[in-house]
Amino acid sequence: MRFMTSSDKPDNAADTSDTTAGPTGVAAMDWAAASADPQYRAAVVDLLGALAYGELAAFERLAEDAKLAPTLSDKAELAKMASAEFHHFERLRDRLAGIGEEPTQAMEPFVAAYDGFHKQTAPSDWLEGLVKAYVGDSIASDFYREVAARLDSDTRALVLAVLDDTGHGGFAVEKVRAAIDADPRVGGRLALWARRLMGEALSQSQRVVADRDALSTMLVGGVADGFDLAEVGRMFSRITEAHTKRMAALGLAA
Amino acid sequence: MRFMTSSDKPDNAADTSDTTAGPTGVAAMDWAAASADPQYRAAVVDLLGALAYGELAAFERLAEDAKLAPTLSDKAELAKMASAEFHHFERLRDRLAGIGEEPTQAMEPFVAAYDGFHKQTAPSDWLEGLVKAYVGDSIASDFYREVAARLDSDTRALVLAVLDDTGHGGFAVEKVRAAIDADPRVGGRLALWARRLMGEALSQSQRVVADRDALSTMLVGGVADGFDLAEVGRMFSRITEAHTKRMAALGLAA
Repeated sequence: MRFMTSSDKPDNAADTSDTTAGPTGVAAMDWAAASADPQYRAAVVDLLGALAYGELAAFERLAEDAKLAPTLSDKAELAKMASAEFHHFERLRDRLAGIGEEPTQAMEPFVAAYDGFHKQTAPSDWLEGLVKAYVGDSIASDFYREVAARLDSDTRALVLAVLDDTGHGGFAVEKVRAAIDADPRVGGRLALWARRLMGEALSQSQRVVADRDALSTMLVGGVADGFDLAEVGRMFSRITEAHTKRMAALGLAA
Repeated sequence: MRFMTSSDKPDNAADTSDTTAGPTGVAAMDWAAASADPQYRAAVVDLLGALAYGELAAFERLAEDAKLAPTLSDKAELAKMASAEFHHFERLRDRLAGIGEEPTQAMEPFVAAYDGFHKQTAPSDWLEGLVKAYVGDSIASDFYREVAARLDSDTRALVLAVLDDTGHGGFAVEKVRAAIDADPRVGGRLALWARRLMGEALSQSQRVVADRDALSTMLVGGVADGFDLAEVGRMFSRITEAHTKRMAALGLAA
């Protein structure tokens, strides 16, 4: 049985194995010990590469979307989020370099998925941009929390440190709410938009899952347990459910 | 007689008055004392507003130009410059707020000039983007050094702190040089481009000088001395000369 204890903090993500309640073997190890397993090592390199390019792509898109801002202070808020994403990118890239991996090479396999996502979801106005910034930030937080429980202590500390510095998307909530209050029809349009964002994110994620065995296996509870596509599906379900609750709270019925 | 002692460090910028060799009265004061003069205060608010919007606009354009990067690590380099500009923006904006000014209001008068500059100088490829990043970064450094000598000690410390953190444009030099080595015709095209950048920068600056009396007066040696358009022209000459020398060093004959 799996359920969300909180709409936006899937911190029970570690309880997804039916046989163990505590952390897996890897979660009790540091990087030096855990990375002796070449499959675990490959999975973490994939993960760091995927997260690093995701942050770089997010930087680029947020900076681009800042152009849609109606005021200078709105523009500055989106630029601030973009800059925060760039610093996440730096930390992830530096870790890749620190464990002897070429960051560019680690990122390459994920370029098509992220670029595809952003290409399919270019906001046509400022409100769509705000919803995208908020949704993207929130989904990223959920995913980072889900994945943190699967990681060795050193990699987990990095992922949680990057996560700690997110949440800049909150400023979007107030603006979107005000726009819906002023014109309720806006809510219908943005609800459709939020669904499209999530649909596109899931579709690109599934492409990655299909392509990257080591990463996918790790995401669902450790290398030793083998690959379980159903478990990946359940992780996506938890993230989608949290997204749906957030959108409802924002006045966007999904 | 005025001359550049160094091609890229116009640190003799303080020696521009014919009657005094040391710092002017304002340069010996702190902000609290200097800002008692309402004209000086207005000039500094203008200056901080102009610099702040310049940094925000630079962030936006560099982030946009990062899309032209041929490799992920090139993209990351330009994104790094963009992020640095954003942090400059934050410091300048925070200072405006700290002295009781509305940052947006202080920036507004300069939006048209910067936006006009960037609109007229959108790079058509990666090399043009690199040259623009380098030229923009260098001109900004020159200007910050020129202006620092005119400022009270607190404002000067801020301007120099922001300046200290620039110079990320150096990475562009190596790439541009390599491209010219590989195909000398590239040099001719980029030399034209660099001239256009400088011409457009001067044209927009002159618009600002014409519009903003208090700022222009301060730029040429202090409020007490009155407005001297010829001295503004000489400041522009020094910056242009430094630019020309840098371009020559880069293999771009002007």
